[in-house]
Amino acid sequence: MNAPVKPYDVEAIRRDFPILSREVYGKKLVYLDNAASAQKPEVVIEAMSSLMRENYSNVHRGLHYLANASTEAYEAARESARRFLNAAHLEEIIFTRSSTGGLNAVASSLGRHLQIQEGDEIIISVLEHHSNIVPWHFWRERYGAVLKFAPIDEDGNFLIEEFEKLISPRTKIVALTQMSNAIGTIVPIAEVAAICQAYRIPLVVDGSQSAVHLPVDVQALGCDFYCFTGHKTYGPTGSGVLWGKREWLEKLPPYEGGGEMIITVSEDSVTYNDPPHRFEAGTPAIVEAVGLGVALDYMMALGRENIAAHEAKLGDYARQRLGEMNSIKIFGKAREKGAIVSFEMKGAHAHDVATVIDRAGVAVRAGTHCAMPLLARYGVTSTCRASFGLYNTMEEVDKLVEALQKAENLFV
Amino acid sequence: MNAPVKPYDVEAIRRDFPILSREVYGKKLVYLDNAASAQKPEVVIEAMSSLMRENYSNVHRGLHYLANASTEAYEAARESARRFLNAAHLEEIIFTRSSTGGLNAVASSLGRHLQIQEGDEIIISVLEHHSNIVPWHFWRERYGAVLKFAPIDEDGNFLIEEFEKLISPRTKIVALTQMSNAIGTIVPIAEVAAICQAYRIPLVVDGSQSAVHLPVDVQALGCDFYCFTGHKTYGPTGSGVLWGKREWLEKLPPYEGGGEMIITVSEDSVTYNDPPHRFEAGTPAIVEAVGLGVALDYMMALGRENIAAHEAKLGDYARQRLGEMNSIKIFGKAREKGAIVSFEMKGAHAHDVATVIDRAGVAVRAGTHCAMPLLARYGVTSTCRASFGLYNTMEEVDKLVEALQKAENLFV
Repeated sequence: MNAPVKPYDVEAIRRDFPILSREVYGKKLVYLDNAASAQKPEVVIEAMSSLMRENYSNVHRGLHYLANASTEAYEAARESARRFLNAAHLEEIIFTRSSTGGLNAVASSLGRHLQIQEGDEIIISVLEHHSNIVPWHFWRERYGAVLKFAPIDEDGNFLIEEFEKLISPRTKIVALTQMSNAIGTIVPIAEVAAICQAYRIPLVVDGSQSAVHLPVDVQALGCDFYCFTGHKTYGPTGSGVLWGKREWLEKLPPYEGGGEMIITVSEDSVTYNDPPHRFEAGTPAIVEAVGLGVALDYMMALGRENIAAHEAKLGDYARQRLGEMNSIKIFGKAREKGAIVSFEMKGAHAHDVATVIDRAGVAVRAGTHCAMPLLARYGVTSTCRASFGLYNTMEEVDKLVEALQKAENLFV
Repeated sequence: MNAPVKPYDVEAIRRDFPILSREVYGKKLVYLDNAASAQKPEVVIEAMSSLMRENYSNVHRGLHYLANASTEAYEAARESARRFLNAAHLEEIIFTRSSTGGLNAVASSLGRHLQIQEGDEIIISVLEHHSNIVPWHFWRERYGAVLKFAPIDEDGNFLIEEFEKLISPRTKIVALTQMSNAIGTIVPIAEVAAICQAYRIPLVVDGSQSAVHLPVDVQALGCDFYCFTGHKTYGPTGSGVLWGKREWLEKLPPYEGGGEMIITVSEDSVTYNDPPHRFEAGTPAIVEAVGLGVALDYMMALGRENIAAHEAKLGDYARQRLGEMNSIKIFGKAREKGAIVSFEMKGAHAHDVATVIDRAGVAVRAGTHCAMPLLARYGVTSTCRASFGLYNTMEEVDKLVEALQKAENLFV
């Protein structure tokens, strides 16, 4: 997608992230909670700081020097996001507060446009994060829509034939994650999109994980909407992107109301602006969008294939090492998966395991990972999850395993 | 409200804001666009940077060191916001992305709770910013509600008797700004609240300007909801607060769906969390909330009364000096007003005036100020607006006047 500027040098990359040199309880930080949120490179932090120190103003509505400077930086970030997704048009990029913000916006606006009513069906999957369940559940709770959950097999593979069987004449929307945040399964979105196109059903993709871990080309994928969040793509909290095909965005009603999304407001009537402004009500997260643009540029400069290849090695090695431990059970062994490994230690509560290995400086998550239906599918209420990012190393996998071996001595 | 720690020393304060020492076109920056967005003190920028460099993680859901550190910082910011508004309870503070985000949330959730339907009435005022019009307009557009606009007199005074006459048995909600962003009028919210309480109508207050310029005590005001935005209170973009009375928040349905706002999610059902979490779906703007907390602490340390007194002098002086110019017409001369001055130069377009004085380093806004109904009330389509903040000086008023005098030579 983008030519790498240099060979993948993880030690050099790590020096770009100030927090990675810190210690926790006297131990070097081993940050394996990237599926929850990623750390930020200095270029992102510095871009945000320097905008606020030197060039900050509100955007679009000003006629003074700083307003123009801020607007240029903000719109340059939109172009970075367009390149990051290989979107066809700049106006297809909507800045949001997060994936959750984007998914709520598309669920609301698309559902309203399609006039979702009782008995209409929305297909999601058992792999979804709550952020791609609850916004659709609102249509069930308030309007009587039916939510159908596409299944997985025991290994966590998405079952595309089973998915297709769920489609009916009442199916109005399909909304799927491209990568499970809990077990790493990659959903074959291009194949799903081909099916959805055949049935003329819009496809919404939750790219919260896939935008981080895979090269993404929304045109090649063939979906209609795609969301991701800034804080997972090494950018700021409070930022995110909703991409939508121009033909859709032009038809959809606005999500939120406020400044910038209107053309005229009188006491009697309101007319709405064109995309993307129609969907960016009020003062946007200017500094955060600029920081996000820098984060996406950073990822593109490293090379998305290079990041994916590096992480694939980490994921394979982690699964191999953890698989050698008798006390550990790994959830999810899909053929196509990212470097996100959920596991349990027999005889120990996930929370206790996470707490113990934290003392060795190893940060993992324990809990439901906001994916309760998936955990229910596996008959568990919590797991430990080690999730890898572009700066993690094989040595950190070893440290995870060492810490777990010590925990084993405590619990097993 | 809070005892000042030192006399109000505007030159010392200015040194806290790095951008104020910069030049524009070789002239010292005179930033008078504070009603659009305020500049940030170094403590805010540094708090955000250091969180990202040293202590960043996602919040609430983690069991590791950084997750706890981030969660503590995030929840400490909630306490700062509680003190800033003198809210009775911490769980009444909801972090939002902006005032627009907060107003859309309350318009959606409160309107749904009250089951707004055709013919139901929502009272706003002609002073409102579009962000406190369009979210209510959605109820008109989609459900047939009626929007009533409380009037002002020619000077811009809010007419409380006229407001009260608008109330009918069909009135479901009153939503008013506490301070006009375009002409500075202060609306007597405590009196309005007393009327609303008598009729048992919930009162939503847009505090986007008043939170910046006035001491605010939501308990003393007697309103039911109050919104403000971080980027105007000297904090980060992408942050804001919606305060709601606990009794209301406990009853209202959620606004957006995602992680954190649920208790359980299964394939068949969803149960929601308590406030404030019910209204904070997904990963919040963690770094921005922390920065906002620092900004609010900064304002409280200066003393809100001190800031208001300083700004009142600036506003009075600006109105006096501009009033002495024959070419200038000021819009809005309400008895109670903040340091926001809208004006036109006879014979010149507002945009041209703003562009010309920008060359002297003076940043003002020109346009509709996202308040088209108010400008229509005055029969104009745009004005220039000089809006003052806690760091502005009397000398900067003089520089504004000098720059306008030069513009006069060009246009008049």
